Amino acid sequence: MTSQDDLFHPVIELPEPTRRARYDRLVGLDETKLRLRKEAALLADPRRLQSWAAEHHGGHIAALTLFEDRAPLFVFAGDVGSGKSALAESFGCELADWLDLPVYLYRLKLATRGSGLVGEMTSLIGDAFTHMHTVGKRASGPGGARSVQILVVDEADALTQSREAQQMHHEDRAGVDAFLAGIDSLAGARLPVVVVLCTNRVGAIDPAVMRRAAATFTFARPDDEQRHSVLTQALDGLSIRPETVRKVVELTGPTEDRPGYTFSDITQRLVPAAVFRAFPDRPVTDEDLVALAEELKPTPVFAEER
Amino acid sequence: MTSQDDLFHPVIELPEPTRRARYDRLVGLDETKLRLRKEAALLADPRRLQSWAAEHHGGHIAALTLFEDRAPLFVFAGDVGSGKSALAESFGCELADWLDLPVYLYRLKLATRGSGLVGEMTSLIGDAFTHMHTVGKRASGPGGARSVQILVVDEADALTQSREAQQMHHEDRAGVDAFLAGIDSLAGARLPVVVVLCTNRVGAIDPAVMRRAAATFTFARPDDEQRHSVLTQALDGLSIRPETVRKVVELTGPTEDRPGYTFSDITQRLVPAAVFRAFPDRPVTDEDLVALAEELKPTPVFAEER
Amino acid sequence: MTSQDDLFHPVIELPEPTRRARYDRLVGLDETKLRLRKEAALLADPRRLQSWAAEHHGGHIAALTLFEDRAPLFVFAGDVGSGKSALAESFGCELADWLDLPVYLYRLKLATRGSGLVGEMTSLIGDAFTHMHTVGKRASGPGGARSVQILVVDEADALTQSREAQQMHHEDRAGVDAFLAGIDSLAGARLPVVVVLCTNRVGAIDPAVMRRAAATFTFARPDDEQRHSVLTQALDGLSIRPETVRKVVELTGPTEDRPGYTFSDITQRLVPAAVFRAFPDRPVTDEDLVALAEELKPTPVFAEER
Amino acid sequence: MTSQDDLFHPVIELPEPTRRARYDRLVGLDETKLRLRKEAALLADPRRLQSWAAEHHGGHIAALTLFEDRAPLFVFAGDVGSGKSALAESFGCELADWLDLPVYLYRLKLATRGSGLVGEMTSLIGDAFTHMHTVGKRASGPGGARSVQILVVDEADALTQSREAQQMHHEDRAGVDAFLAGIDSLAGARLPVVVVLCTNRVGAIDPAVMRRAAATFTFARPDDEQRHSVLTQALDGLSIRPETVRKVVELTGPTEDRPGYTFSDITQRLVPAAVFRAFPDRPVTDEDLVALAEELKPTPVFAEER
Amino acid sequence: MTSQDDLFHPVIELPEPTRRARYDRLVGLDETKLRLRKEAALLADPRRLQSWAAEHHGGHIAALTLFEDRAPLFVFAGDVGSGKSALAESFGCELADWLDLPVYLYRLKLATRGSGLVGEMTSLIGDAFTHMHTVGKRASGPGGARSVQILVVDEADALTQSREAQQMHHEDRAGVDAFLAGIDSLAGARLPVVVVLCTNRVGAIDPAVMRRAAATFTFARPDDEQRHSVLTQALDGLSIRPETVRKVVELTGPTEDRPGYTFSDITQRLVPAAVFRAFPDRPVTDEDLVALAEELKPTPVFAEER
Amino acid sequence: MTSQDDLFHPVIELPEPTRRARYDRLVGLDETKLRLRKEAALLADPRRLQSWAAEHHGGHIAALTLFEDRAPLFVFAGDVGSGKSALAESFGCELADWLDLPVYLYRLKLATRGSGLVGEMTSLIGDAFTHMHTVGKRASGPGGARSVQILVVDEADALTQSREAQQMHHEDRAGVDAFLAGIDSLAGARLPVVVVLCTNRVGAIDPAVMRRAAATFTFARPDDEQRHSVLTQALDGLSIRPETVRKVVELTGPTEDRPGYTFSDITQRLVPAAVFRAFPDRPVTDEDLVALAEELKPTPVFAEER
Repeated sequence: MTSQDDLFHPVIELPEPTRRARYDRLVGLDETKLRLRKEAALLADPRRLQSWAAEHHGGHIAALTLFEDRAPLFVFAGDVGSGKSALAESFGCELADWLDLPVYLYRLKLATRGSGLVGEMTSLIGDAFTHMHTVGKRASGPGGARSVQILVVDEADALTQSREAQQMHHEDRAGVDAFLAGIDSLAGARLPVVVVLCTNRVGAIDPAVMRRAAATFTFARPDDEQRHSVLTQALDGLSIRPETVRKVVELTGPTEDRPGYTFSDITQRLVPAAVFRAFPDRPVTDEDLVALAEELKPTPVFAEER
Repeated sequence: MTSQDDLFHPVIELPEPTRRARYDRLVGLDETKLRLRKEAALLADPRRLQSWAAEHHGGHIAALTLFEDRAPLFVFAGDVGSGKSALAESFGCELADWLDLPVYLYRLKLATRGSGLVGEMTSLIGDAFTHMHTVGKRASGPGGARSVQILVVDEADALTQSREAQQMHHEDRAGVDAFLAGIDSLAGARLPVVVVLCTNRVGAIDPAVMRRAAATFTFARPDDEQRHSVLTQALDGLSIRPETVRKVVELTGPTEDRPGYTFSDITQRLVPAAVFRAFPDRPVTDEDLVALAEELKPTPVFAEER
Repeated sequence: MTSQDDLFHPVIELPEPTRRARYDRLVGLDETKLRLRKEAALLADPRRLQSWAAEHHGGHIAALTLFEDRAPLFVFAGDVGSGKSALAESFGCELADWLDLPVYLYRLKLATRGSGLVGEMTSLIGDAFTHMHTVGKRASGPGGARSVQILVVDEADALTQSREAQQMHHEDRAGVDAFLAGIDSLAGARLPVVVVLCTNRVGAIDPAVMRRAAATFTFARPDDEQRHSVLTQALDGLSIRPETVRKVVELTGPTEDRPGYTFSDITQRLVPAAVFRAFPDRPVTDEDLVALAEELKPTPVFAEER
Repeated sequence: MTSQDDLFHPVIELPEPTRRARYDRLVGLDETKLRLRKEAALLADPRRLQSWAAEHHGGHIAALTLFEDRAPLFVFAGDVGSGKSALAESFGCELADWLDLPVYLYRLKLATRGSGLVGEMTSLIGDAFTHMHTVGKRASGPGGARSVQILVVDEADALTQSREAQQMHHEDRAGVDAFLAGIDSLAGARLPVVVVLCTNRVGAIDPAVMRRAAATFTFARPDDEQRHSVLTQALDGLSIRPETVRKVVELTGPTEDRPGYTFSDITQRLVPAAVFRAFPDRPVTDEDLVALAEELKPTPVFAEER
Repeated sequence: MTSQDDLFHPVIELPEPTRRARYDRLVGLDETKLRLRKEAALLADPRRLQSWAAEHHGGHIAALTLFEDRAPLFVFAGDVGSGKSALAESFGCELADWLDLPVYLYRLKLATRGSGLVGEMTSLIGDAFTHMHTVGKRASGPGGARSVQILVVDEADALTQSREAQQMHHEDRAGVDAFLAGIDSLAGARLPVVVVLCTNRVGAIDPAVMRRAAATFTFARPDDEQRHSVLTQALDGLSIRPETVRKVVELTGPTEDRPGYTFSDITQRLVPAAVFRAFPDRPVTDEDLVALAEELKPTPVFAEER
Repeated sequence: MTSQDDLFHPVIELPEPTRRARYDRLVGLDETKLRLRKEAALLADPRRLQSWAAEHHGGHIAALTLFEDRAPLFVFAGDVGSGKSALAESFGCELADWLDLPVYLYRLKLATRGSGLVGEMTSLIGDAFTHMHTVGKRASGPGGARSVQILVVDEADALTQSREAQQMHHEDRAGVDAFLAGIDSLAGARLPVVVVLCTNRVGAIDPAVMRRAAATFTFARPDDEQRHSVLTQALDGLSIRPETVRKVVELTGPTEDRPGYTFSDITQRLVPAAVFRAFPDRPVTDEDLVALAEELKPTPVFAEER
């Protein structure tokens, strides 16, 4: 049995200020945020569903039994920079508040993808799920969960890519199978464990994995409104005029021959570049922003090849 | 010799309530269910066939000898979500009742597909079949079988894919061969052992495997009638109007540019999503279902590449 | 040196009732059967050829020396289900009677195709031929052979596939070479050892192997006459009308868009399916057979890719 | 844990005369040089940014928090001979003067790309980043950095090439992932560590790596002005006439069917070849240069294949 | 250092009756036979060349020095069954008579192509050439060679295939290189060692190997005259009429849609098949031969893929 | 650290008669020969350059500093048989005379390309360069070099092929990188070490290697004049008429559908074949040469595939 340190990055207890800040910065994803909260809430305390059925449908409903077969698996699909990884690692902050329970964030380590021997990937993934099962069980109690566990698998396509691709190695295929077995072991176990796969190549995820997903959320680059909101937030304090912000929103949108800016194109490149233009001799001006927005190219779209 | 734990997932004694429920939910597969029962019954007690021949054909018939050369192998082929795995793991429930015998469900473990060394796959598959042979023998008695064993090989294509594919590794080919040898060792042994291969890539199964199959059952996504039946069952208690159910049956059927819903699209996605829409503040409404059926996309078809 | 158990499946002494029954069921292959008997007879006792030459050609003929350079190698080529493996494993039954000698059937084990290390395949094949050489020598005596050995290599293409295919691994190529060396070691050794390669991909067998074959027999799916004969035999006792049998012969033949039934399609699928239709409540009827023959699809042809 | 010697070439303390000379020879890259200096300055002492904000924007600005999420990663992309590696290894010279701090140049060793076992690459890259983290921490103090560390990864495409390329080995993919993890561990750590990737195949760098880059600088072959400047410098002392230099600038520029000379085509081939023509019997003449500039072909462009 | 038994099949001292018979049966190859005899004679005693030069050219000629740089390497190229391997293994018989010296036939063993570890092939080939060097030296004396060594590499393409083929493994390439080094070590060493490469894929032999060949002989399937000669020899004693033989010569020649018979098609298939037709009841008739010549298909040509 | 014997073939001290003879036979390469002599002379004693600058340019020139950055690497590119390897291994003969210093010829051994384990290639190449560095240092003295070292890497493409080729193994790529590192370690070290890469696939050499080359020399098959010179030399003593030689020069030149003869086609095939025609019974005649020149095909051109 591999130790927890070999399987996961250091576990993080949520809420935690940095991640909460990121969560707050992810504007325009309210529907996804709501659904995640509800899903996790039911895993944390399945009795909530029964109470709801009793209250609103007058007792037992058949749908309740369906919940016993569902896998606590969510797929976050979308282009690089669309915020999917940021949300996966931060939605537990709000969840913790809502449930008034600690939420533990587990991030699958690279080593879990095998560190040498063929066949290792299979057993490491197996160990990772066994671990989640164990901690999930320990966190369960007669009065509902005592904590919620979130397992995030970033760049998940490397792990679970489709067996359709003929050139996949036997070993990779075994990794997909191990993942399927791990998810199946959680399905119906009703433990407070949520698994989130992030991928920018959703078409490469094995259909058998996709079929098990309780829900798939698709993330896109921020639209005008989202970019406006992010920009306003990021430029706070620089005394940039509203019409300049609107101009930049426009300049950073998609055009015929290139995509729009990603969240990180705005927060990690455009605004810092404006700062560097001015630093250390003068303040950032409206012209700096417009000039840079005209000059900087957005991160290219990750082309899915099949 | 590898231990049983390395070869199979924990063995499950059937009947068992969860699987029986799944079996019952698989509507519209009556012919397949009947045939499986008969096949297994004869393997459990070959004397039944002789009695039948005596009764209905007045004694010995040549066909009886043909049964001695048949392999107890069934191929369940079909798209993801068509219910083939669910049936493979649950038909033993009814069989147990019908024969009044315990039925043991063996599921081939991933590790059997090799865990590192080239060549291991061959010997693990060999061990798995040797194991089934042994337990089958132990379960046989002068008065017929004392139990029936079902070996399910899910995602079987990974194990037995066609040698036609030139890029297959030597090792994979050896796996196919080991499987053929295992099946041949059961053929004619007249042991109460049934082997079921599930695959969503039947075209990728080696012809030599297909030829040995006593029967191949093809599973499809549920048709209108099946969807209606599943929906009715799943919505029980929610007070949904019959015309709404009919509307949803229609919306979830195949259209020109996408396939119809799978069984699990209905039970694990559509109905739970409706619940989440309503939960925790209000009851599920007819509108929830219609809106979601219009919104949710069915699981994509697994494209067979050759 | 690898032990016999690692190289071959349990050796079977022929004649043996099950295999004799299969041999008898292989109708329409009389020419092939005759040739095999003669070839084996000469290997068993080369003096027969000299006697014949003396009797019919008045003494020594140059052709006698040619026999000293021939390899005792036969290639059985044909589609799945054409009876080639069945014949390979059963023709020794008749041979044993004809020669009044025991015939031992050796079947090359899967493990001989290597069980892990690159390079093992080469040495295992070498060991297998060394073994055949030894037992062949032991079975030879001044008065002719004391027994005949038949070595069957089923699915031989995996072992001896053409070096033309550029993507073949070096290791596979070495396997071909080891096989060539083994055959060459038997050629001219005049031991009572016959080697039979069965393959459904004759085009994939290395030309250097093909060139060494004393004869290549091509097997086809049964023609009308053969299907009639097999059906009549298999339906014996079921009181099926002759015109029904003729109808079924017609239905199971090849059509424009699919091939005809294989031997096993008839004996392992069509007739058993008819039995299952009737069992346990009623006798098999003529309609059962006709309906099933219209419904069941024959095993697809194994497409050779090159 | 791997030792520093296994991970990096001998660490070089900058400024150092040879590298400073190279830095000075890289004419026409002033904008890039300025930006690098500013970026490194802020990593060395983050308080400078706060002072600037206070002075020019009257206090706290939101942008300051964005700097906490940026990765100290720069991508130098460009054709062979465009000066990118030379700049990466020499810009620390000027930085050291500007900051009045020692700058340490770390160059990732080849061995870090794995020396045998699959999986090693992952752990070696991990170790390299852990090492940079440690030295970065040691160099940090309450009053700002005590030194700056520059990690140069030359030929970075081998390490971080895009997962889009389907034929990439699992192992290479794991290398990309390890690199991403390493960069993420530095992002926000605010240590005086700068990572520079040099590549002539920027299109082959994984988008997830590109997205993390604080800035990407594109290098081109020298233009007329740059070639003139380099030539003048290199020919100093040979008494070549200005119009000859201008003629050579023209001859070494790009034409329709070939690219222009690289920096090294001029300094390592053209001028030395002129010397060899003359040596040992006579001085270099204007004709030597013109003749050679007409004769020598520039280094071909590295064609990116995807 | 590997032992001789690991490198070569048992060494055969020539002349030896079976091989001499084969040599005699190879009709129509007189020019090749003559050249081989002369080449080997000079290697056995280089003084012969000087005597000849003295006698016919009046003393020293520059060409003599060229012989010191030649590699004793001959390539036998041709289709399967064209007699190239037979000649390679038998021309030493006549050579032994002509030189009145023993000739030793070495045949490179399969194992020399590596038996597991990558890199082994290189060292085994190296050992094989070192061995030939040693025995060649031992066989050399002041009065000329005391014996001649012939090293035959059959199916040489597997060993020395062209580095042009991009998919060749590094290991195979190293094998080519080791072979080149081995040949170079013999070139100019003036030892009584002759190396013969047989291949049916001459286009796949590395150009660097081809360039070192002292001569390349191309073998074809037998023409009319050769077939007539072989047939007459093989049918001796069967009282076949001359016009029947001529008819069979015609029938076994190439036609538009198939090649002609190989030597072995005639001696190992056609004539034995005729014997089997008659045996044991009657003599072979002219009709047997004609019928079989019409029926039997020649060995297919080995298609070179590049 | 690997021993010298594992890295290089036996080191040869030049001048040495056989190689000098080859050098002399390489007619028409005077320009290349001159340049090589000058380059090596400067490496042997860098003070010569300063003296020259002082004498002809009146003191220090900037170009002198450029020489400190150059790699002592030469690429010999050309078709098989164009004399590139012969020159690489023999130009040290003349150099030794010119410098009046011993010249040591190091030839990289095959084993250096790795003998089994992935990763070994990298370290062996590293060791080889470390070795050259050490001997170069030992040979350096205050008064200039005490000897010159030439390292020849034949068939260099196998070692340094372009990373552009996507199918290159990671291991091969590491070999390229190790080579680059080795060359960089010599650049500027001003040791009396010259590295020569020979390749017939110059397009396959990595651009980063090509860029480091101080010069690339392209070798072609001999032109009319060169063939005439070689032939005259090789036929000396055979009393061949001048017009016959001219006729043969013409016949051995390139035509529309085949290339011309290589150096070795003339010296190792044409002339020896003429000798064999005559030997042992008669002198070589003019007709022998003309007939053979019409008959023999030149070595095919090595086709570069990319």
